[in-house]
Amino acid sequence: MAQINENYRKLQAGYLFPEIGRRVAAFQKANPDARVIRLGIGDVTLPLAPAIVEAMSAAVAELATAKGFRGYGPEQGYDFLLDAIVEHDYRARGVEIAADEIFVSDGSKQDSGNIQEIFGTDSRIAVTDPVYPVYVDTNVMAGRTGPIGPDGHYAGILYLPGNEANGFTPGPPRERVDLVYLCSPNNPTGAVATRANLETWVAWARANDAVIVFDAAYDAYIQDPALPRSIYEIPGARECAIEMRSYSKRAGFTGVRCAYTVVPKTLLGATASGERVPFHGLWARRQSTKYNATPYVVQRAAAAVHTPEGRKQTGEQIAYYMENARRVREGLRSAGFGVFGGEHAPYVWVRTPRGLSSWDCFDRWLSGAHVVCTPGSGFGSAGEGYVRLSAFNSRENVEEAIARITRAS
Amino acid sequence: MAQINENYRKLQAGYLFPEIGRRVAAFQKANPDARVIRLGIGDVTLPLAPAIVEAMSAAVAELATAKGFRGYGPEQGYDFLLDAIVEHDYRARGVEIAADEIFVSDGSKQDSGNIQEIFGTDSRIAVTDPVYPVYVDTNVMAGRTGPIGPDGHYAGILYLPGNEANGFTPGPPRERVDLVYLCSPNNPTGAVATRANLETWVAWARANDAVIVFDAAYDAYIQDPALPRSIYEIPGARECAIEMRSYSKRAGFTGVRCAYTVVPKTLLGATASGERVPFHGLWARRQSTKYNATPYVVQRAAAAVHTPEGRKQTGEQIAYYMENARRVREGLRSAGFGVFGGEHAPYVWVRTPRGLSSWDCFDRWLSGAHVVCTPGSGFGSAGEGYVRLSAFNSRENVEEAIARITRAS
Repeated sequence: MAQINENYRKLQAGYLFPEIGRRVAAFQKANPDARVIRLGIGDVTLPLAPAIVEAMSAAVAELATAKGFRGYGPEQGYDFLLDAIVEHDYRARGVEIAADEIFVSDGSKQDSGNIQEIFGTDSRIAVTDPVYPVYVDTNVMAGRTGPIGPDGHYAGILYLPGNEANGFTPGPPRERVDLVYLCSPNNPTGAVATRANLETWVAWARANDAVIVFDAAYDAYIQDPALPRSIYEIPGARECAIEMRSYSKRAGFTGVRCAYTVVPKTLLGATASGERVPFHGLWARRQSTKYNATPYVVQRAAAAVHTPEGRKQTGEQIAYYMENARRVREGLRSAGFGVFGGEHAPYVWVRTPRGLSSWDCFDRWLSGAHVVCTPGSGFGSAGEGYVRLSAFNSRENVEEAIARITRAS
Repeated sequence: MAQINENYRKLQAGYLFPEIGRRVAAFQKANPDARVIRLGIGDVTLPLAPAIVEAMSAAVAELATAKGFRGYGPEQGYDFLLDAIVEHDYRARGVEIAADEIFVSDGSKQDSGNIQEIFGTDSRIAVTDPVYPVYVDTNVMAGRTGPIGPDGHYAGILYLPGNEANGFTPGPPRERVDLVYLCSPNNPTGAVATRANLETWVAWARANDAVIVFDAAYDAYIQDPALPRSIYEIPGARECAIEMRSYSKRAGFTGVRCAYTVVPKTLLGATASGERVPFHGLWARRQSTKYNATPYVVQRAAAAVHTPEGRKQTGEQIAYYMENARRVREGLRSAGFGVFGGEHAPYVWVRTPRGLSSWDCFDRWLSGAHVVCTPGSGFGSAGEGYVRLSAFNSRENVEEAIARITRAS
C-alpha cells in the first residue's frame, strides 16, 4: 500500500496559530459581547496604498486587452520588478546584486520552507530559539531530524537560544553546522542584528563553509539607517548567504503575495565527490520545475512599491505601525513589564508578569483584557515566559489593548 | 562544507522549453524578417474574459479600502471559491466533494510537483510515456530514482508507453506501483481517458492499494458530455485518487495563477507500522506549512469563472481554441499526416513525416515553415517521432501555420 512520508508523524500536532484561533473562538462563543482586540497573528491591517492599487488596476485592465494580455511570465520575474529591486533594495545601499540572482516568488514563507530542498539530506541545521516554525518544520518533513524531545526540540537540529543576556541575537555555534537560519528584524522577538553581529556570522560561515539563510522579511521596519537591511551589506556575504525579502509587511501584501529570494552566483556547495557547484543553478532548477512565476498583476503591484509615490505611501504606513509599536513598548514598560524589540520591528516581545508561562499569560490576557497575544513558547522553548505583541492594528485598538492589559495584570 | 541535494545531479540538463526558446531565438537572429508562428509552448493567447476582469478589478478596489482590505486568507481558500467549485465542478456532475477536501493553490504545476512530498521516499512511481516532465523531475529531486539511462528513463520509475496501438491511453501495469500520475485530457498527446479506461485504473488502484494522481488541468476542453471530467465520476475513486484542476487553460489564467487539488478524506496511506492514515491531513499540513494561500484578487477572479457570464465567456474562448484544434487536425490530416488528439484537448499530436526524429522535424518546420512545434521526444522516449501542436493562437496564425507546414513537408 502507498506509504506516507513518515517524517510528518514527527511534527508536533497543531501549528501555533490554529491553536490560538481555537482558544479565541471558544472565548468569543462563551463571551459573545466581549470586544476582543487581536495583537496576535502578524497580519497587516491598513489598506493597500494608492500607488499600488493604481498599478494593480492598470495591470488587470491590460490583461483584458488582446495587446496587453500576458500568459506565462518569465520564470524568475519580470525585468521591470527585478530591475527595481536591484536599484532600490540593493544599489541604493551600495550592494551589487545582479537581476538574475533574484527569484521573485509568492512569499517568504514558501521560499524559506522550500530552500532546504537544494541542500543534502544529511545537512546539519541550526536555528535560533525562539524561531519562526517554518524553518524547523520543513526540515522535519524532509527527514533531517529525529523525533521531538520533551523540550520541544527535534533531535538533530542545533538550537541557539536567544535571551535577555545576548539581546535575543545569538552568535554562531562552536559545533559544525551546514545551514543556519537567521531572521532580522526578528520574528518573534523584534530584535535586530547589528552590523557587528552579522559580521561575526559571515566570518563564521566563511571559515566553516556554512550557508546562512537570511530572512529579512521585516527589513522595512528598521528605523536606524546605519543598521544593515541586507546581509549583503556585509563584505563576504555573497559567498555564504541566501537572502529573502518580502512585500507582505513592507507594503501590506499578506493577501497579495509577493516576495523574492537572492541566491548569489558566488555561493557554492559541495557535491558528494567534493566538487564545488553554485547553489544558484539548483534553486533556478527547483523554481523552474516546481513554481510557475508570480502573477503579473502582483508583480506590477510590487514594482509600484519602489516608485517615489509607493515608497512615500508605504513609508507612512510603516511609520504608523511603528508609532503603534512605540506605544506598546512604552505603555507596557511604564506599567512595569520587561519589554524588548519593537524599535526596528513591528513586534514587541514581553516578559510575562510574575513568571507566568506563555500560555497562562495568553489565557489571562484573553479572559481578563480581551486581548490576543502570541505565546512565546509557540516559537520554541527559549520563548517560554514571553509573549509577542504585534503593532498591526489601529491606533485606537493598540491604546485600548495596552490600557486593558495594564489594568488586568 | 554545505552539501547540495545530490539528486539534482541526476536531472537531465535543460528543461524542454528553454531549449526550444534557444533554437527559436537563434533562428530569429539569423532570420530577422521571418514571421515565426509559435504553436509550441501551451500558453493561452486570448485576453481575460470580461466577467473575470470585472471581478478582479472589484477585488483590487476592495483592498484599497479600510473596510474591504484582506490580509492573510483562509489556508485552503475562501469559501466563495470553494463553494463554487463544489457546486459547479462536482455537484453539477453528480459528484459529492466537501469544501474542506479542496485546496486552492497557485497552479497545478506546483501541486503536481509538490504532491510527492507526502508519500514515502521508497514509494514506487509510475508515469505514462510521453509525460509532463514535472511529475518525473520532482521525484528525481526527491531521491526516488536512480540515474537516467540512455533511453531517457530514470531507474526506479516505471514508464507506461502510450502509443497508437493503445490510443495513447495506457492501462495499469502488472508490476507493483504505489503512485501513478495520469493526465487527461493528456498533455502532450491530446488523448482523453474514457470512462471505461478510468474504471480500469480505479479498479486496479483499489485492488493494489495504489494512489492515482489525476491531473485534469485540461478538463474544460472535453467536448463530449459523456466523457468523465473528474476521476471522482468513477465510483470508488474517492478511495484511491487525488485530483488536480486548473484555471490556466480553462480561463486564460496562465499569468493569473489559480488551481486546486482535491484530497478526499477517504484516501488512506500506510505508516511504517501498518496503520492507515488519511493523506488529507498530510496535505493540509504540507500546505499550511509551505504555502500561504492564493491571492485574494486571484480567488475572486477564479470565482467569476463559475458565474453564468464567466461560464459563457470562457466557454466561447474554449470553443475558439477548439475550432483552431479542428483546423490543425483536419488540415494536417488532409495533407497526409498521422494526426491524434485535438478532439477533447487543445493539443494535436502529429506523427513526423518520413520517420523524422522529433527534433529534426522541429528544426525543419522552424527553418522551412517558420513554425514552432514541441518535439514529442522532449516528453519521453515514447514521444520520439511525434511533435505537439497547440491550438493556442489566433485563427489566422493557425491557418497560416498549417498552410506553411503543408507546403514545407
